[in-house]
Amino acid sequence: MDIASMIGIFFGVAMILTGNHMEEGLISSVIRVPAGIVVFGGTMGAVMLQFPPKTLLAAIGALRTLFLGVRINRIALIQQIVDFARRARREGILALEKEIPNITDPFFSKALSMAVDGLEPKTLFETMETEMGTVEEEWKEKADVYEAAGGYLPTVGIIGAVLGLIVVMGNLNDIKLVGAGIASAFVATIYGVGMANLICLPIAGKLKAVGKNIASFKEMTLKGVLLIQEGINHSIIEEELKGYLDEKTRAKYARQTTKPA
Amino acid sequence: MDIASMIGIFFGVAMILTGNHMEEGLISSVIRVPAGIVVFGGTMGAVMLQFPPKTLLAAIGALRTLFLGVRINRIALIQQIVDFARRARREGILALEKEIPNITDPFFSKALSMAVDGLEPKTLFETMETEMGTVEEEWKEKADVYEAAGGYLPTVGIIGAVLGLIVVMGNLNDIKLVGAGIASAFVATIYGVGMANLICLPIAGKLKAVGKNIASFKEMTLKGVLLIQEGINHSIIEEELKGYLDEKTRAKYARQTTKPA
Amino acid sequence: MDIASMIGIFFGVAMILTGNHMEEGLISSVIRVPAGIVVFGGTMGAVMLQFPPKTLLAAIGALRTLFLGVRINRIALIQQIVDFARRARREGILALEKEIPNITDPFFSKALSMAVDGLEPKTLFETMETEMGTVEEEWKEKADVYEAAGGYLPTVGIIGAVLGLIVVMGNLNDIKLVGAGIASAFVATIYGVGMANLICLPIAGKLKAVGKNIASFKEMTLKGVLLIQEGINHSIIEEELKGYLDEKTRAKYARQTTKPA
Amino acid sequence: MDIASMIGIFFGVAMILTGNHMEEGLISSVIRVPAGIVVFGGTMGAVMLQFPPKTLLAAIGALRTLFLGVRINRIALIQQIVDFARRARREGILALEKEIPNITDPFFSKALSMAVDGLEPKTLFETMETEMGTVEEEWKEKADVYEAAGGYLPTVGIIGAVLGLIVVMGNLNDIKLVGAGIASAFVATIYGVGMANLICLPIAGKLKAVGKNIASFKEMTLKGVLLIQEGINHSIIEEELKGYLDEKTRAKYARQTTKPA
Amino acid sequence: MDIASMIGIFFGVAMILTGNHMEEGLISSVIRVPAGIVVFGGTMGAVMLQFPPKTLLAAIGALRTLFLGVRINRIALIQQIVDFARRARREGILALEKEIPNITDPFFSKALSMAVDGLEPKTLFETMETEMGTVEEEWKEKADVYEAAGGYLPTVGIIGAVLGLIVVMGNLNDIKLVGAGIASAFVATIYGVGMANLICLPIAGKLKAVGKNIASFKEMTLKGVLLIQEGINHSIIEEELKGYLDEKTRAKYARQTTKPA
Repeated sequence: MDIASMIGIFFGVAMILTGNHMEEGLISSVIRVPAGIVVFGGTMGAVMLQFPPKTLLAAIGALRTLFLGVRINRIALIQQIVDFARRARREGILALEKEIPNITDPFFSKALSMAVDGLEPKTLFETMETEMGTVEEEWKEKADVYEAAGGYLPTVGIIGAVLGLIVVMGNLNDIKLVGAGIASAFVATIYGVGMANLICLPIAGKLKAVGKNIASFKEMTLKGVLLIQEGINHSIIEEELKGYLDEKTRAKYARQTTKPA
Repeated sequence: MDIASMIGIFFGVAMILTGNHMEEGLISSVIRVPAGIVVFGGTMGAVMLQFPPKTLLAAIGALRTLFLGVRINRIALIQQIVDFARRARREGILALEKEIPNITDPFFSKALSMAVDGLEPKTLFETMETEMGTVEEEWKEKADVYEAAGGYLPTVGIIGAVLGLIVVMGNLNDIKLVGAGIASAFVATIYGVGMANLICLPIAGKLKAVGKNIASFKEMTLKGVLLIQEGINHSIIEEELKGYLDEKTRAKYARQTTKPA
Repeated sequence: MDIASMIGIFFGVAMILTGNHMEEGLISSVIRVPAGIVVFGGTMGAVMLQFPPKTLLAAIGALRTLFLGVRINRIALIQQIVDFARRARREGILALEKEIPNITDPFFSKALSMAVDGLEPKTLFETMETEMGTVEEEWKEKADVYEAAGGYLPTVGIIGAVLGLIVVMGNLNDIKLVGAGIASAFVATIYGVGMANLICLPIAGKLKAVGKNIASFKEMTLKGVLLIQEGINHSIIEEELKGYLDEKTRAKYARQTTKPA
Repeated sequence: MDIASMIGIFFGVAMILTGNHMEEGLISSVIRVPAGIVVFGGTMGAVMLQFPPKTLLAAIGALRTLFLGVRINRIALIQQIVDFARRARREGILALEKEIPNITDPFFSKALSMAVDGLEPKTLFETMETEMGTVEEEWKEKADVYEAAGGYLPTVGIIGAVLGLIVVMGNLNDIKLVGAGIASAFVATIYGVGMANLICLPIAGKLKAVGKNIASFKEMTLKGVLLIQEGINHSIIEEELKGYLDEKTRAKYARQTTKPA
Repeated sequence: MDIASMIGIFFGVAMILTGNHMEEGLISSVIRVPAGIVVFGGTMGAVMLQFPPKTLLAAIGALRTLFLGVRINRIALIQQIVDFARRARREGILALEKEIPNITDPFFSKALSMAVDGLEPKTLFETMETEMGTVEEEWKEKADVYEAAGGYLPTVGIIGAVLGLIVVMGNLNDIKLVGAGIASAFVATIYGVGMANLICLPIAGKLKAVGKNIASFKEMTLKGVLLIQEGINHSIIEEELKGYLDEKTRAKYARQTTKPA
């Protein structure tokens, strides 16, 4: 469970309300249903026009992944591939056949079973690369939904504010009403800018990073399988795959593998 | 018929009018013909200067595609190619000649007939790839028209608003007139920002996605034909083409093909 | 003559003035020489600093091309190349030597004469590709001038407006003078935003499209010559080059060539 | 120690406060805790939502590198590689084995030990290139954190300002209170724009440059090792690696190596 | 001496001051030292944080190149290379050795001496290409400094303006003081927007173009040397290198070489 992300959402909103409270702003004065209808309704319309329902549902579903976190264990992957490589060299690649059902990642198991079936490396590479590209594209589309919403929200917020100001302009005589009117018109701006910058754009950024992470994990998996198929020595494979680890993970890997090495 | 898109347009506008109504805004106060003439007329001029009439007509025509939806059936394509591959292996690629007239997609039928005619794979690939590039470019141009309009609209809206404010500045003494004048000047802003963000930019985004989708479908078709020509085993072709399916479609494909497999 | 472009410029400005007139705005109130000097003079200075005189003159010269239109006839090109290919196969590539003086496009004639002279395809390709790159770069530079101007204009317009407001601030007591002063300050904004969005940016967009169109025409020409040199069959060349035609032009091509085919 | 960077931060803020002081602005009037809570708290929330804690910590850690400077000595690297190349040609590449423990840069020592172990150049290149890509990606992610913060800050500053203005709108009668209220609302804008432009965006720019510099240093190291492995003459290696030096460093290199050459 | 650039700077500023003068604006009212300290001091701080001193000095030094102009003579280069190619074919490439000391461009002389020394074309190409990349990068960095400054200036100008408005808000009772205060606050905006758009961004654009121009000249030089090394016929080399000339220069080249050809 990715608690940091959830804290992020509430922390940002809470800080803004706290600061507002210290300035004697009332929470009640920034809760205005009509402004919400204009801003969120208008943006939703734009997003529904731009994306097919299937993509919208996928984008909503991606929130689950976002808050649950993606389980990607690069260290375990290297250990498993090194182990497979050692056995493939000793007993032949066919010996890995009985391991395939135990692999939980369908991408890994498909790539390995193609290797075991004796397909040409080029065919194996092309097939799995197309699949990688499709996955990356899927994540990019989900991120696009939030990015588009983050782009429309502030401008629809401006529409809401200007509509409110037009109402105000009809009552310029009574300065009390003017103040109240402008205040309520401003709320639409806050909704648009806030929703975009505190929620939608950060989510878009996060989804893009998740997609990149998943794609790089698949790339690492595919490279490992191709090296096993080539019959490369397991310690060279280990070195090659360690190139995908960032500094911290590499240190952790070194600690975990000192004994068996 | 792509109902979701059409709902999108009306939903957005309806929500904005609803919110405005709840704030006691009158619809009549945001209907101002002169503002419309400035904003839509000015933008139309800019777009006519930038794009040749042919591209503008194509962009308008693309709206039809947008609301009717594009019929792309990747599952049927894979099934057909797998079927063709099986027969080509058994009876030779010439056996596919009599199938060509039954293929409705001209891109597919052209590629297959080149393969049947025994053209070199390189020539086949280059010819069809040029065609794919042209199609992609055509869709990009259509999207460009809406994107350009979406860029000009808000700024022309500002021109409209400033022109209105200049008129207001001549009557600063009567606060009633000032209010009414500013209100009507603001309408140009709403037209510009609203038209751009609720209509033009989402349509541009959608057209780009449609173009990408069509291009990827053609790429899939071309790959299938090249694999048939190479005489690859039909189950390997199936695996390669399944790489183009997103997760949901892949699940659907698995369900549809469990029996015949 | 590209009439649509010229209409575009006048249509946009006319619509804006019409809308303004309907709102009782006076044309005289938006004609202010000092604002024009600030906005156009300031922008001109920025553009003169950024681009060498040679590029500026080329950019001005490009307006002629813009309004006269570029004569690019892809159908005639395919027909000519197919004809040449047929003769080269029958009589040898040297038979094309006497056709070279009749070719009006210097790019085509240079490429063909290199082929006839028996240069290696690689040398021919590299030489002509360098030339294509230079042409594309030239058009991009011309577009850059208008794009840069379109970027500077609105901000210099803001400088003009702010300078006007500073004058106004010295006379805040007389509300009549304030109104007139703000109105005249606003004119600089209109000049900057209007000139950028109705003239400069659309022209930049158009010039980029023209450059792309010319480059793709040259690419098509070069590909045709290389295929002739390779001695490829004329009907295959026809198929390959038809890939460069968009849907409409392809239909037109089919109509024009049904008889001789 | 990179003193210039540290001076940069204080210089910018000091100049702004000096100018403000000369205009009789009080420092006390721009210190408002609530505005700080809204702007920095809100931005922190957005950043926590977008980036995992690991990346945030790495981004904070990068500040140390930023102010301490990165020790990259291209001249020393060339001298060492040239020296190694000379010995490898004379005594064989195995003679370099005893030098590996003296190399402090782990990237260099890993690459060289792979070369000494007799790995294929292609394997060596791929392994080290993957590692280079990971390092570049790590630095890009750190820069992304500051760039994202620099993007959110001004807009969250606007939220703070608008919230302040809403409070003001409740007290439009007393012009003293209005002035004070607007002034304090403006402080949020200054915090957002200032923090973004004086701190976050310059840091993001610097981190990107540092990452590029490190990556190019690693590329230079890798190229040197590959050339040693190929057994290329040391003076040719020197020429190739000198291509990575900018003009000033090349002049310095020439001065340092005139005697031994 | 590139007079046009220098005129550009003064012309823009002069036009703005002229327009302002015609509107009865006083030059004295836009000269405010405190605003200058805020805007230029704040921006300088941001730039010093982002770039190392070495890059800043290089960026300042680049102004000299900017106003003196870069001496690049493509026609002379082609003539020299064609001449060298003719002699290399007749007398062998070693005959060019005595010409090397007469070549003023160090890039050309280094490439030619590597060719004369009999290095492999691949080594020669890689060495010189690395050097070209470094030069391009150096120019890009110089342009980046001005582009960054052009990005920070308007926002720091806003900080200056808002700080000024905060001072104004303390004296809302006296409308004279309010006017003067707002006017002086606005000056910071003018400084930021003006300096960015009239000076920094055009210089950045110019430096990028200069860098591209130099890089393309080096590319042309390298290509010429490689073709000489390959022993290609001089008239073919001439055709290949002419591809780098724009239309005007090509016409000029034709005029200059009609006699000797």
